[in-house]
Amino acid sequence: MTDARVITLTTDFGTRDAYVASMKGVILQIDPGAIIVDVSHEVAPQDIAEGAALLAAIYPFFPSSSIHVVVIDPGVGTDRHAIVVESARGTFIGPDNGVLAPALVLQGVVEGGTGTVIDGRARVLTSERHRQPVVSSTFHGRDIFAPAAAHIAAGVPVEEFGPPLVRIVMPEARGPQVENGAIRGEIIRVDRFGNAVSNISADLIHGRCRVVVRGLEIDGLSSSYQTREWSAIIGSTGLLEIARRNGSAAGTLGLEPGQAVCVSLLP
Amino acid sequence: MTDARVITLTTDFGTRDAYVASMKGVILQIDPGAIIVDVSHEVAPQDIAEGAALLAAIYPFFPSSSIHVVVIDPGVGTDRHAIVVESARGTFIGPDNGVLAPALVLQGVVEGGTGTVIDGRARVLTSERHRQPVVSSTFHGRDIFAPAAAHIAAGVPVEEFGPPLVRIVMPEARGPQVENGAIRGEIIRVDRFGNAVSNISADLIHGRCRVVVRGLEIDGLSSSYQTREWSAIIGSTGLLEIARRNGSAAGTLGLEPGQAVCVSLLP
Amino acid sequence: MTDARVITLTTDFGTRDAYVASMKGVILQIDPGAIIVDVSHEVAPQDIAEGAALLAAIYPFFPSSSIHVVVIDPGVGTDRHAIVVESARGTFIGPDNGVLAPALVLQGVVEGGTGTVIDGRARVLTSERHRQPVVSSTFHGRDIFAPAAAHIAAGVPVEEFGPPLVRIVMPEARGPQVENGAIRGEIIRVDRFGNAVSNISADLIHGRCRVVVRGLEIDGLSSSYQTREWSAIIGSTGLLEIARRNGSAAGTLGLEPGQAVCVSLLP
Repeated sequence: MTDARVITLTTDFGTRDAYVASMKGVILQIDPGAIIVDVSHEVAPQDIAEGAALLAAIYPFFPSSSIHVVVIDPGVGTDRHAIVVESARGTFIGPDNGVLAPALVLQGVVEGGTGTVIDGRARVLTSERHRQPVVSSTFHGRDIFAPAAAHIAAGVPVEEFGPPLVRIVMPEARGPQVENGAIRGEIIRVDRFGNAVSNISADLIHGRCRVVVRGLEIDGLSSSYQTREWSAIIGSTGLLEIARRNGSAAGTLGLEPGQAVCVSLLP
Repeated sequence: MTDARVITLTTDFGTRDAYVASMKGVILQIDPGAIIVDVSHEVAPQDIAEGAALLAAIYPFFPSSSIHVVVIDPGVGTDRHAIVVESARGTFIGPDNGVLAPALVLQGVVEGGTGTVIDGRARVLTSERHRQPVVSSTFHGRDIFAPAAAHIAAGVPVEEFGPPLVRIVMPEARGPQVENGAIRGEIIRVDRFGNAVSNISADLIHGRCRVVVRGLEIDGLSSSYQTREWSAIIGSTGLLEIARRNGSAAGTLGLEPGQAVCVSLLP
Repeated sequence: MTDARVITLTTDFGTRDAYVASMKGVILQIDPGAIIVDVSHEVAPQDIAEGAALLAAIYPFFPSSSIHVVVIDPGVGTDRHAIVVESARGTFIGPDNGVLAPALVLQGVVEGGTGTVIDGRARVLTSERHRQPVVSSTFHGRDIFAPAAAHIAAGVPVEEFGPPLVRIVMPEARGPQVENGAIRGEIIRVDRFGNAVSNISADLIHGRCRVVVRGLEIDGLSSSYQTREWSAIIGSTGLLEIARRNGSAAGTLGLEPGQAVCVSLLP
């Protein structure tokens, strides 16, 4: 039991169709002992940034032997690469379109500016022995990524999957801007409770601050959702959120992804 | 394999965000052999009664070695307790806000009126050794409840988690009223088929009866959804439902949670 | 670990209520080592054709020791049979209402026209020892199908579940029509990306073709979703799809299930 490895799945496939189950069947045929964990299949269709953020949020909580498969793949069937990167914190598999990069930059495995792989073992998935016998042009999740994950879980070394990968594709930058004691970011997600999550991470905020979003001013950070009617609060993934006690901040204020958020750092 | 324990998860987190997967990662880091089962993550946000009803409905069908984690937690980050209660039918973990209580009252582990723990081993989760190293104020599912479940699955006795819990918080009463041969209850849930489930349990109904809901009169109980156009029927969790053959009773009659349902017991 | 058997679940129960988790609890009480995989619980309520198509799409990717449980069961509580069919490619369990038949016809286990079982071991599930102690009239997924799957996973031979099944119920035919070099089919599903999937399988299309749907003409088949603005493409389950590059074909053209699709085979 202790030898079994976790394979996580993050996709934009939804859970109504046959896509996700087909991937799981392929995995279990190759490695019957694999422990499969669904991260989410409800990423907005083809939203590489949302998939990348999910992966970066969850990998630190999994065993370092885990294999994380992310299939947000608008370029399936074109010449984009399929890749695997193994680091000290996990093994990451997906299309080379930016969806894996942020999690690897956080670990120092990939250089943020250039995408150069500076640590870890990275390969392009070309080995025909480690794919489905017939590879479709529309569903590499089932035909390339799931078999690769299962073969790695079953003990095949990353080196056998193909040639070294030197540089990976970086996603379009979307971070906040910091100048003159002010941080200008934006809302990137609204969660199920109506909390509006920004792209401003806790490490940018030092000392006292004032948060402004859609005309609402909030002084200082709260330590719980219940402290005040309106809260600016550091959420569980380390990002600034706007929350309303026993209500929906996003619903009340009309907050959507893209809405500007400004944090003034007070002297 | 036979030593592996089941951990069930019931939350209002949805399955799009990183919340549920983070809990699973934390569990698998502590107990790689745990068998994790999702009950539901689609409980209405912060609806303690819905979460409590789900837990009460499912625990009887699981092995008694199972650990049931319920995170419907509007008070996260305040001084509400985090608790564990171990009984002969399972181990129950969650915030002390009423979400665990109905399942425990059904088992005779907690006294219905006062919430006094009269059986089983109940503790407040205060042990720092059995939490995440850093506990956020917004996500105790990941930082307190998931680690507690995994440590119990891995063999840590309940006694090690903190001081005894003497009385647990009871949810607001929402049962039906019975007088003069009539039962006055209400619709509490509409399921995916449009069946409208009431809070009237089978054991209140003796002999012949007539059910009235939104002007519709139904004489007697049916034994299958196919028997009649409109059926009053005891559903799979022992509660009276209103159903329509090959259609949606709730959609046709406009039934929503809170709608009055009256059962007349006939002589 | 290698002895553990996979049990897949395909239902129309949704994932909000207690139904699916109750089935899983019942399975794990009988066979604690079973590996449970959700195929989908979002089949449209009582849509036998959708459940049958899902089963036929996924079983080829699972280990042949897998047990596939499908509960799309509008006739629950009536006299329709509960059945199990074991073939060289898996064990199939569900109500005898046509939901299992297409997967079995594909394997040559059942004769397409008559539903006669011509291979494999097929039984009617009548054995009381292999059910829940009390069988409800509304939820055979929990009370009959889940226990049957778990007992089979635990090693009980199919023969012990009841009398032989000679002929199974076939679903209403819904295939495309082929005449004079033209194939007339229809859209049967729209997936999460807006791709409109037809009931026209790849093996009907030989050589060059022209596809017409709602006034749009598409010449020839594409090999990837990115090749052209509008694509006719063979999807991952072998069916003709209409797709739009970086957009929703169904949303743009207003395609819904039932929409006619015509393929002209060119000389």
